[in-house]
Amino acid sequence: MMSELTPLPPGSTIGILGGGQLGRMLSLAAAQLGMKTHIYCPEPDSPAFEVTPHRTVADYEDKNALAAFADVVDVITYEFENVPESAAAFLSKRKPMAPGVRALAVAQDRLAEKRFLSMSGIEIAPYRAVENFADLEAAIAQIGTPAVLKATRMGYDGKGQRMIDSPAGAVAAFTALSGQPLVLEGFVAFEKEISVVVARNGSGMVRDYDPAENVHKNHILHKSIVPARIDKITARQAGRIAAQIVGSLDYIGVMGVEFFVVEDGKRPKLLVNEIAPRVHNSGHWTQSVCPTDQFEQHIRAICNWPLGLPVRLADVEMENILGHDVATVISRLGPGMCPRIYGKSEARPGRKMAHINRVKP
Amino acid sequence: MMSELTPLPPGSTIGILGGGQLGRMLSLAAAQLGMKTHIYCPEPDSPAFEVTPHRTVADYEDKNALAAFADVVDVITYEFENVPESAAAFLSKRKPMAPGVRALAVAQDRLAEKRFLSMSGIEIAPYRAVENFADLEAAIAQIGTPAVLKATRMGYDGKGQRMIDSPAGAVAAFTALSGQPLVLEGFVAFEKEISVVVARNGSGMVRDYDPAENVHKNHILHKSIVPARIDKITARQAGRIAAQIVGSLDYIGVMGVEFFVVEDGKRPKLLVNEIAPRVHNSGHWTQSVCPTDQFEQHIRAICNWPLGLPVRLADVEMENILGHDVATVISRLGPGMCPRIYGKSEARPGRKMAHINRVKP
Repeated sequence: MMSELTPLPPGSTIGILGGGQLGRMLSLAAAQLGMKTHIYCPEPDSPAFEVTPHRTVADYEDKNALAAFADVVDVITYEFENVPESAAAFLSKRKPMAPGVRALAVAQDRLAEKRFLSMSGIEIAPYRAVENFADLEAAIAQIGTPAVLKATRMGYDGKGQRMIDSPAGAVAAFTALSGQPLVLEGFVAFEKEISVVVARNGSGMVRDYDPAENVHKNHILHKSIVPARIDKITARQAGRIAAQIVGSLDYIGVMGVEFFVVEDGKRPKLLVNEIAPRVHNSGHWTQSVCPTDQFEQHIRAICNWPLGLPVRLADVEMENILGHDVATVISRLGPGMCPRIYGKSEARPGRKMAHINRVKP
Repeated sequence: MMSELTPLPPGSTIGILGGGQLGRMLSLAAAQLGMKTHIYCPEPDSPAFEVTPHRTVADYEDKNALAAFADVVDVITYEFENVPESAAAFLSKRKPMAPGVRALAVAQDRLAEKRFLSMSGIEIAPYRAVENFADLEAAIAQIGTPAVLKATRMGYDGKGQRMIDSPAGAVAAFTALSGQPLVLEGFVAFEKEISVVVARNGSGMVRDYDPAENVHKNHILHKSIVPARIDKITARQAGRIAAQIVGSLDYIGVMGVEFFVVEDGKRPKLLVNEIAPRVHNSGHWTQSVCPTDQFEQHIRAICNWPLGLPVRLADVEMENILGHDVATVISRLGPGMCPRIYGKSEARPGRKMAHINRVKP
């Protein structure tokens, strides 16, 4: 596990599945390290296509396109955890893929993720698998309410979930979500949500950034405040848990680990909410105050280079800019404001269009 | 001069003349601000072609190619001061060019540069124009030796210049360089070389970064050490002189201003050595310790956006990596080391291939 793998040399080509803002910023970071990138994405208008001449516009089920893509790249990574399993399996037989198929399988399925975390000794909210209504009733009897019923797959930004406030609410929630595997989670009355961006390379080197405190609006990340307003012991504990998770998964790349901070007598308790096997929105603050940001760190990890120092040189607050608000970014650029704009051609309501890091030196 | 120009909106296209590492890093910075870029360069194998799908491979004298390029971009900038005058004149009639033709004319010609600086009240080394050998003899009589005879145009990294140690050396120097306009400069027995990267946007906003102390090897920049080992008053004075220069030129963009620091009794004296109307090798350190680096600052300036805070969050040392030394970069990546690798396909001796910023948090 601690063996020294050969670093991928500059001039190699990194294949990136997904052409959104994360793929775009990964590609930019890769270029700063002398790498070429090739973006694979079904949508011809993807923002990442603007930052490299190498692209494949094809469906993730298109085996010919996948094979041709694998032929011209040296390592494969992705910007989103919902890469179809068939594509991941097909590609990873042809070229190294990082993070690997196991990380994808775990992160794609809430139930698999919770089982993995529990078995690794990581504290999480109570949960029960729900395949039918009887399961749900039994789960509510054990966990109690309030609780949250969630689809095990394809959920993000609050999609695919229903709150159950009392046992009487079970029918409505089940009706809304049934027809797919579900999981019931005990609702956590958390004090704060924080997240840690952590990286691990193929030689087992692990580096974690300071925890960010996350504020959501309409289930979408609104702000990340760094440092998080938690005590130092809790901050260090979050980093250790994140490091433990990437170690347990033999993970390669950057991972986002989200926590609930729960008041629990004298010391706050940390429960892992979910993990994301990729660069993470709540790690965008690293772009403005860390010598090595999360995007460069991911590229260094998947190329098996030594990781960069995750040191934070100043306090910072990241704010997401959604929809048509992107038109206001330039007028908001006061001192210390660092914008990152994703180059999306169409601003739809709720669509992530940009972010601004406000640095407090 | 302080009028508010309309900012160029995200989604616009920035045309960049020159496809080397500076053009590449400008393109990457532009993409982070939501801009598209189009690279114009005669060499088909240019590193900047790897970071955008939009390119023109054509000579700088090709009027058809230049016209087509101007048609598809919204603003034009360049990575090198030796853009042919004819191309600059042709393009700047069609689209805004920043920095403008006046900055280019001044920076392309050592004599014009020295005259501009002198007339602006900036202290420089003594100089005389040399068109023939009689001029050179007269110049040596006035300035004395040691002195440096330089071609007025196309000199960089020590090319096109000869040291004259005594009047007897005049013939050899003149023979080596004659056939072109020349200038004799008094040799400055400097204590240190420092440089300031300064930016000015179209609304007259000016921001300067901390001075870097530069160490050369074989006339090529070897290291930039930041902060420079000079007193604070001298550092502030360097910033003020740089700000004065961009103001006098009504300049838009980032400029590198090189100084000699001369011991002169109780207080060091600053003489401007030369100016570069572009992002500057001695400003690469800003990439690792400034929330807004010189590349983003240049893009913000030429798009008439508010400039970023030029604050430096840590001490840092930049080292250039030349030729085949690029193969050693990965093995040198200790803590705090941030590499930038230019993606050049061929490593020739003395060719700038990469740099490493060593951050000391």
